[in-house]
Amino acid sequence: MTEFSFPGAGAPIGGPYPSGRITANYPRNQWWIVATGNEISREPLQRWVLDLPVVLYRREDGTPVALDDRCPHRWAPLSKGWLEGDELVCGYHGLRFAPEGNCIKIPTQAAVPSKACVHAYPLIERGPFVWIWTGDPARSGESQPPAVDWIEQPGWSVLGGYMEVECNYMLLKENVLDLTHFGYVHRKTFKILDFTRAPEVKVDGKEVEFRIEFPPTRLAPIFGATTGFGEKPVARVNWGRSLSPALHVAGQDFADGNAEPGQRSTAAFRVLHATTPVSPTRMHYFWMAGWDLPLTEQQRDKMLETTLAGFAEDKDMLEAIQVQMTRDPRGLAYPEIMVNSDQSSVQARWQLRRQLDQEESQ
Amino acid sequence: MTEFSFPGAGAPIGGPYPSGRITANYPRNQWWIVATGNEISREPLQRWVLDLPVVLYRREDGTPVALDDRCPHRWAPLSKGWLEGDELVCGYHGLRFAPEGNCIKIPTQAAVPSKACVHAYPLIERGPFVWIWTGDPARSGESQPPAVDWIEQPGWSVLGGYMEVECNYMLLKENVLDLTHFGYVHRKTFKILDFTRAPEVKVDGKEVEFRIEFPPTRLAPIFGATTGFGEKPVARVNWGRSLSPALHVAGQDFADGNAEPGQRSTAAFRVLHATTPVSPTRMHYFWMAGWDLPLTEQQRDKMLETTLAGFAEDKDMLEAIQVQMTRDPRGLAYPEIMVNSDQSSVQARWQLRRQLDQEESQ
Amino acid sequence: MTEFSFPGAGAPIGGPYPSGRITANYPRNQWWIVATGNEISREPLQRWVLDLPVVLYRREDGTPVALDDRCPHRWAPLSKGWLEGDELVCGYHGLRFAPEGNCIKIPTQAAVPSKACVHAYPLIERGPFVWIWTGDPARSGESQPPAVDWIEQPGWSVLGGYMEVECNYMLLKENVLDLTHFGYVHRKTFKILDFTRAPEVKVDGKEVEFRIEFPPTRLAPIFGATTGFGEKPVARVNWGRSLSPALHVAGQDFADGNAEPGQRSTAAFRVLHATTPVSPTRMHYFWMAGWDLPLTEQQRDKMLETTLAGFAEDKDMLEAIQVQMTRDPRGLAYPEIMVNSDQSSVQARWQLRRQLDQEESQ
Repeated sequence: MTEFSFPGAGAPIGGPYPSGRITANYPRNQWWIVATGNEISREPLQRWVLDLPVVLYRREDGTPVALDDRCPHRWAPLSKGWLEGDELVCGYHGLRFAPEGNCIKIPTQAAVPSKACVHAYPLIERGPFVWIWTGDPARSGESQPPAVDWIEQPGWSVLGGYMEVECNYMLLKENVLDLTHFGYVHRKTFKILDFTRAPEVKVDGKEVEFRIEFPPTRLAPIFGATTGFGEKPVARVNWGRSLSPALHVAGQDFADGNAEPGQRSTAAFRVLHATTPVSPTRMHYFWMAGWDLPLTEQQRDKMLETTLAGFAEDKDMLEAIQVQMTRDPRGLAYPEIMVNSDQSSVQARWQLRRQLDQEESQ
Repeated sequence: MTEFSFPGAGAPIGGPYPSGRITANYPRNQWWIVATGNEISREPLQRWVLDLPVVLYRREDGTPVALDDRCPHRWAPLSKGWLEGDELVCGYHGLRFAPEGNCIKIPTQAAVPSKACVHAYPLIERGPFVWIWTGDPARSGESQPPAVDWIEQPGWSVLGGYMEVECNYMLLKENVLDLTHFGYVHRKTFKILDFTRAPEVKVDGKEVEFRIEFPPTRLAPIFGATTGFGEKPVARVNWGRSLSPALHVAGQDFADGNAEPGQRSTAAFRVLHATTPVSPTRMHYFWMAGWDLPLTEQQRDKMLETTLAGFAEDKDMLEAIQVQMTRDPRGLAYPEIMVNSDQSSVQARWQLRRQLDQEESQ
Repeated sequence: MTEFSFPGAGAPIGGPYPSGRITANYPRNQWWIVATGNEISREPLQRWVLDLPVVLYRREDGTPVALDDRCPHRWAPLSKGWLEGDELVCGYHGLRFAPEGNCIKIPTQAAVPSKACVHAYPLIERGPFVWIWTGDPARSGESQPPAVDWIEQPGWSVLGGYMEVECNYMLLKENVLDLTHFGYVHRKTFKILDFTRAPEVKVDGKEVEFRIEFPPTRLAPIFGATTGFGEKPVARVNWGRSLSPALHVAGQDFADGNAEPGQRSTAAFRVLHATTPVSPTRMHYFWMAGWDLPLTEQQRDKMLETTLAGFAEDKDMLEAIQVQMTRDPRGLAYPEIMVNSDQSSVQARWQLRRQLDQEESQ
């Protein structure tokens, strides 16, 4: 075990925290996935992100809109109202808001004061996801939601889903940054039992990447079946990359050195894990998985079934950890040790710590 | 929009509140409805009001009694005990209390110390309601529960009900003080769509009254049907009056200028909204509605059905607002603007502020 | 009523408490029952005691083990893992712990640092119960779990059970220290209606004992039936003894002065009440009851049925009291009076106060 000395040791979710309490550890000047595009329609939708209520809807031209879901008159959730054209009508007393957040009508008076407005959150729709900027709108151009090209690439088979998980979002980040948990948490579902070494870890700007090569081995059943390699020994590279607090992408690249002519010799598998805080102890989890090859309906169903079973195992474990952090009076003051396979998590904590410090000093 | 500058702006429930938290904003030297008379019997009943547990029962002569629902011996709720004559026996160790609150028997000893007593709350039964005085009993004569005469007047048809609503009681007060919400919250139930102007507001001592006249118009279906005016255009005056933090009464007076001889030319409709705090974020809501005319059973059923549907809409909206106040970390520090139709609410806040300040300075 | 002046008056669970709040009032250097022996197996079991998560399992030789149920790596509950031999494998990343609490394997590295360990709680299995020492292990020899011989004595008929009760554990202690509640709480189940006098109370070191003699009387039905004395008047002595904050034992000794030759002239009944805090407002309640005579299956069933009904009455009352303490804003500042039958409770509070003070000063 390397002994890491870094801020956040003993405080795994971006600490240190006074008196061992869990507090908000999410940067605000950040793009987060707020919804999948098909969730947002002409029916206003409420979604809490980073402790804030947000109302989401689409303009008539389809552009998504996100406003503070709290009328500045009597604090009704605007999501209980309805649309008239591109404007949102409060369902309590009828104040009407433009997609830019400014109030444009107060039923019982002619004048509309400029302070009658709600915050309008910058949004970007990219592929199946809609991203929200939760910080100062003036800074929203400083970064961009990352492009994840395989999601919409021709020839790729993709599937995805959503879960609310009752834990701090960094617990899930750390879960996907250390895949040695496969042999324990998922030993009966994904059945990847050889992820037992600490991978190489590389830091590139704000990104943290791990990578590990496996010599030709018989693949776990779900991968053998989906790739068509079956029980043949196939080499693979397994990697993961935290792009930001909001997004992690990962993959496996398979290569069969003994493929017959005309047979497939490689295959690529990708996963996306998007982690959006709801509160310090709750998160939205959006995920997608993709193959660079066609899947039969049966293969797809099997893939989805296994993935959902595996992610339910993660959810169960992470929520149990959150209970310990919350209910055990030692909370975040409980001893925490770092091991070899934590190098990527530790680097991601460092990145988060820097981002939070920077935000605080602005 | 008139810009009101008053204590409580930005703090709608009687603030200001330190750090945006919701705290108790109810005066204690006040009569509140604690129960309907038919709820109180020879079976002790527990009811929480203004954060306090109260036990209610009737003496043998029918007089209602309200005591602290907490035995001073081992803190058992006295409501778990039973009556012997006019006295309440604690169901844990048998201490016995007189309706005045003094303990008159301790099973294992002859002497009963004077400090073995519970608070006895002054009660007044008036019509269908029992009112409780939650403050200093010595001051209970300073005011009287208001008389609401139509409730028991011959020739009137009345109906009523009860709901617990998970919100601060001032949210419901403000709901009934600004009826421009009819066109939004109740557009599909009560269907009063023309309440779009701010009414005149008048302050008289501790009372706040609004009043608005409507020229002859086709009435909302439920009113056309109940009055017998049907689809004929009929003039009306709509008014509401906050008598105290505990009670609001309201009415509509209809006048048909073109009534045929022998036909009804006027009709009066009245509503009572009683708002009793349970805690800072919960309330008892007692209501009654009445007509100065006979109703068929079918009209009565329709009236009750529509009223319950409408009040469920209010409950849904008010509880959603309470969630925003409680869960949104900006809480009561969220911007709040006042509009023309808020004049009665604003005056009621002022009244409450004065009453709370006065109570604090006593 | 004797007026007791003692620390803890007005603060019944070991106070005084600042601002009337309920806080932990349990000594840590104490043996507590953590489980019945048959609950602990080769499947790790989670149990919270004194606010702490504990995992329980048995070694291959049957010896029970208790460890902190929180992996020092990423805080997963170890109870989600599994056993390999006598060692517990964390179900998240496979760290392996010896029954002594030290980590003996970290999958991704050769070295295991000494600080990678969890607390191992001293345990003693005695009869049907497993006792845990929640304080400094070095002091665990200072006392011993008390022996309760009748539980496993030949010729005795015993039965027992477990409930979680949502109240501070001292509320149950005080419940069994003052049996005048029988005539009220249990008047329809146990039907012991003559426990109306304050018993004699004796303090012996850390133990508090009460004792009361009853002249020959017709026994309560359940006792008449179980002893075979039926409706005959039989003398009895009723006593109870608090051995520690963790355990209370009680009994009734029956003597029939007019027994026919060859007929049973005495009978002994015993009860054990074990009170283990989960948190300041929740507790584990383990109980056993025994007769020094054989019971038919039918007598046993009736005895169990009556006991469960009676203990459900206690649970209902104690949880209602806890609600008053928690929800009523006056909390522990509510007036509390002592009566004659409280002498044993008061002495037990004194004992607890001394034990807590002593622990604090160490």
